[in-house]
Formats: sequence, C-alpha cells, structure tokens
Amino acid sequence: MTTAPISTATAARAELTALLRDVEVGLADHLALESARRAHPDPRGALPVLDIAALVHAGGKRLRPLFCLTGFLAAGGVPGSLPVPAAMAVELLHIGALIHDDVMDDSSLRRGAPTVHARHALEHKENRWRGEPRRYGEAMAILAGDLAWTYADGLMAGYGADVAREWCEMRSELCSGQALDVVAAAEFAADPLLARHIAVVKSGRYTIQRPLTLGALIAGRPDLAPAFAVYGEALGEAFQLRDDLIDAFGSSDLSGKPAGLDFAQHKMTLLISLAMRHNAEVRALVERQAFDELRDHLVVSGALEAVEDHIGDLVRTARTAIAEAPISDEWHDELCVLAVQVAYRDR
Amino acid sequence: MTTAPISTATAARAELTALLRDVEVGLADHLALESARRAHPDPRGALPVLDIAALVHAGGKRLRPLFCLTGFLAAGGVPGSLPVPAAMAVELLHIGALIHDDVMDDSSLRRGAPTVHARHALEHKENRWRGEPRRYGEAMAILAGDLAWTYADGLMAGYGADVAREWCEMRSELCSGQALDVVAAAEFAADPLLARHIAVVKSGRYTIQRPLTLGALIAGRPDLAPAFAVYGEALGEAFQLRDDLIDAFGSSDLSGKPAGLDFAQHKMTLLISLAMRHNAEVRALVERQAFDELRDHLVVSGALEAVEDHIGDLVRTARTAIAEAPISDEWHDELCVLAVQVAYRDR
Repeated sequence: MTTAPISTATAARAELTALLRDVEVGLADHLALESARRAHPDPRGALPVLDIAALVHAGGKRLRPLFCLTGFLAAGGVPGSLPVPAAMAVELLHIGALIHDDVMDDSSLRRGAPTVHARHALEHKENRWRGEPRRYGEAMAILAGDLAWTYADGLMAGYGADVAREWCEMRSELCSGQALDVVAAAEFAADPLLARHIAVVKSGRYTIQRPLTLGALIAGRPDLAPAFAVYGEALGEAFQLRDDLIDAFGSSDLSGKPAGLDFAQHKMTLLISLAMRHNAEVRALVERQAFDELRDHLVVSGALEAVEDHIGDLVRTARTAIAEAPISDEWHDELCVLAVQVAYRDR
Repeated sequence: MTTAPISTATAARAELTALLRDVEVGLADHLALESARRAHPDPRGALPVLDIAALVHAGGKRLRPLFCLTGFLAAGGVPGSLPVPAAMAVELLHIGALIHDDVMDDSSLRRGAPTVHARHALEHKENRWRGEPRRYGEAMAILAGDLAWTYADGLMAGYGADVAREWCEMRSELCSGQALDVVAAAEFAADPLLARHIAVVKSGRYTIQRPLTLGALIAGRPDLAPAFAVYGEALGEAFQLRDDLIDAFGSSDLSGKPAGLDFAQHKMTLLISLAMRHNAEVRALVERQAFDELRDHLVVSGALEAVEDHIGDLVRTARTAIAEAPISDEWHDELCVLAVQVAYRDR
C-alpha cells in the first residue's frame, strides 16, 4: 500500500512540490549509497539500512517534510538545497520513531507491510536460528531505528545553533512524551489532561509545530516561531486526535496499520479518557477487548462528538494564529488549506 | 558497584584529569536540568532521563571520554570547554548503546545494578499494570536509549563539518556492526574473519579510534587521523577481545554484568570462532550451555592462548603507530601506557 502525499492544490505550491521531489530523490540516494557502503565486508551489515529504505519506499504521507518545507517557503526562504536535508531528516526521524514504536506496541503492520520486528522475527523462525525469534526481531528493529535517527542527525549537522536547539528539543520531547504514553497505557487511569498533553508532545508538536519552526529557522525567520508554535501545536493535536479516531473507527486498508491497536494496547487517548470519565463501563469494555461494543458506546455517549468538537476548535485556533503571522497571503491560504486537510484526513 | 576510571599516572595528565572532572560535572548538570524540565506537567515524563542519570551515576570506566580528551590534548588542543561537550556526548552515546544492547541481549545486570528494561519490567509486574511486563520494560528502555542518543547529538551540534562526519560515521558503523553481531549469533556459524570484523566495528572503533579522532579533529589536527586510526583500531579490537575473555572467564562481581552472557547468547566472538574452527565439540558445548566444560576446552585447545597472542600483536601495532605520530613525547608515552591498561584490564 502506498499512501500519497497530501495533494498540492495551488500553482504557488509548485516550489513546494519541487522540493518534496528533491527530498524523495535525496532519501533514495542517501540510502542506496549507505546500503552499498555497509554491505562490505559482509552483506548483512546493510540489513538495518535496507529496513529503513523499505519503509521509505513504502510511501507515507511525508507530512513532516511537507511542513518543514512549507515553514521554509512561507518564511520567504529561497528554494535551493538548503531546506532539503532538514526535510529528509524529519522523515528519517519519523521512520526511526515508527520502527521503535511498532516494537513498543507490538504492531504487526506498517504502511501496508509487516513491521520490521515482525518480519525479522518471522525470518528467524523460518530459518530455525539460535535464540528467540521475538528477541531477534526486536533487536534488528531497535538497530534499524537507531540507524534512522543517526542518518537524520547527520543530515541536520550543517545548520546553525538555533536550528540545532529546535531539533534536539523535538527529539527529547518525543522520547519523554512516548514514555508518558507507555506509562499511561500501563496504569490505564482516566486523565483527559494527561491524554491531551501526550497528544500534544508525543505526536502533535513533532509532526507539525517543530518541522514548521525548523523550516522558518532555516530561512532565517525566528520571528515566525511564536505564530507557528500556536498553529502547529493546535493542528498537531488535531492531527493526533484524528489519528485516534482513525485507529478506533477506520479500517486497516486505509491506514496501512492494524485497526483498533490503541484499544488493544490500552492507550489512554483523549477519546478514551473522555469516555471513561463519564462512564465506568468504558474501562470494562477495554479490559474485555469488546471493541464493537466500545465503538457503539463512544458514539452514543457523545465522546466521539466531543473529540470532533475539539478538533474543530483546534483548527480554528490554528487558522487564527496564522492569519496574524507576517507571511504572504499566498502562504497564509496554503497553511489554512493544510490545516483542514490534516485535521479531516481519512487515513 | 562503581568502576573507577583507568588510573592517571603521570603529572602531565593533570589537564586530562581536570577535563574528565568537567565531563562528570557537565553530565550531572545536564541530566539534572533535563529531568527537571521533563517532569512538567507530569513527573513520569522524566523517567527516561532518570534511567540515563542512574547509569551515568553508577560509574563506568569513561573510556570514550578519556580517549576523546586524550586525542584532543595529544593533538595540542588547548584545554578549555571545547572538547568537553564531545566527551560528554561519547559517554551518552555509550549509555544509549548499553541500554539498547541490554534489551537485545536480555541482560539482567549493568554496572552492578538491574538493567533498565529489567527494572521497569519488574515495576510493571509488581504494580500489576496493564499489558505485558516484558514489553513495558523494553519500551521504556528503547525510549531511554533514544533519549541518551538525542542528548549526545545535541552536545555535538556546535562542531565543524569534519567532526560531524566522524560522529555520524561512528554511530552508523556501530548500528551496522551490532546488526552483524545479532545475525552472526542467530546463525552461529564459525567465521573468525566475521568475528574479527564485528569486534572491530561494533566495539573497537567506537570505543577508541573514533573518540580519539574526534578529539584530534576538535583540536584542528586532521593530520593525526591516520595514526590514530591504526592505533585506535588495533587497540579497540584488543579492548573487545579482552571484553570477550572477561565475559568468558571473569566474574560478575568485577565486571558489573552477568558472566558467560556471550556464551548464553551464542555470540560469535573471536574466541569462540577460533575454537569452533578447530574442534566441532565446541559448538555442542555452547548449544548445551555447558559453560564449565566449554571454558576448560577453550584453555586446553589453545583458543585462549591464540586470543592472548592476538591481543599482544594488537598492542604492538598500536604502540608502533603512535611512535610515528607527530605528537609530543609526553603524549606518546601516555598513549602507550593507555594501550597496556586497556588491553590488560581485568574488568
């Protein structure tokens, strides 16, 4: 399954499309070069590179490169090679995070194909190798994720101190937010404030706010950071909430990953935490893994509607923030269109 | 258990000792600041920082900072704050690698205390949280390792392009080498050349050659890279071979990690691969996990002696390389002393 990038509607976005193409070429070249280098003296030294390349080539929305490049262009950055390494880096960071995430969630499917740890575990089993297939699969996935982050960092090395600070902050808050997510799922206590915080830091900021701000900083426009922060944080939260709804109500065919995984993993999403606060039965339904009943309950109880309302508020917040930002009308419009596309996407 | 840094014998190394102290202070301050920042709004957001801090404070030989600073000083770098962030970074890189490594090896003990994944899995079990204790422990360890690498990268951000390249290479070859190690253990085929390559890339280069070279590059002395490469690669391999011997014949009390772990994990060390090549019985002893018999066999068959001879050759290679390097007599002597200390350490 290949997920197409979010469509680019206006002529003004030709620049963006061209840069996004450079990102694709850059990623393919970088990984081809590295897999050739790592294949000596033993071809298996390239295995983690090939795992990364498979995920890159399987598609994905490329949302983070899109926002990084949008931030750069909206800030008046002159197209050239300057923002492309950073846009490649945010995608590789995402790939590394996905690979590690899939181990942490024990997810079987990603971008329509078996996850890295699942594939390696199966290979181990089929070959009757020494040790435990699960451990082997996890080890290979940990290394592939580590390597993806290494490449991402290498690509970010040439930028200035403010870009480096933002980049470091982006990754630290991601790790910290993920840890909160894991702990909250284990404890499984209804806490909408915590659920919202997790949505903001572990996914929202890193998907939209930080890539946008990186782009603006690379273009030499730190003055845009406050407006991009409000826009990006609000829209980022909307993005994560939509992700929760797609997981809960969507199909695996569309998303390229298993449906209902958050339920199965006891994820304390805002959807679940709101529903749990109003009705104790929700906890029992999750515990029993009675997903159909749970979905009905989320609709009937109004939890789904409350999350949709919240998404609507977040999109309005994002659009208001960008209306006041010192950027061209053209890029103002583009960012408003992107807000709606991200918040109301179906996969 | 606290492992003391390798002793500093000469008066000339006062500079080095002072810089190593700066590294300790820097690490403690950095982690204290970060754990305070990540504790808001939820204290559990700081958990991965605390995992890193616990390992830093548990001691360790600080070999990588030692070689990074030695490379800097031997290259004529003027002491100051310049090399300290890099020396902190190589230790944090090591901490992250250890945390991930312990998951991959399912090791229970590190620096004399339970490993990160083991500790979190136990906490999960004791609290009867949702989900699987093992998965929870591994997730928390993956995140702590990711965060340690993030901090390491943040500290490396201020250096020039040649330092950035070396830093990226150091981490890519580590990931690739680790993958080879994992695959070789799973397949468990006797291959001394592969075993030697793994020893060089996954551990040797990253422990000695790369930190030394980073230090020289930070001091603005790329001309030292070739001599440091020969010294570092040879001594790095000796370091890893000694590690294998300590694992095979040492005690857990001294090393701070479980003894015999390589045997249990079917690690294709040079020791094992040499022994296997000469005698098919070795494979059976590893398969049966008959460790006492295996140790006897390694001694009687001459495999232990062959590895010790190889270590001796490597130390000679390292000392010859450094004798020809354009550095002061004082630092030449120090590097020779370090070579012996590293190759013949007992933990």
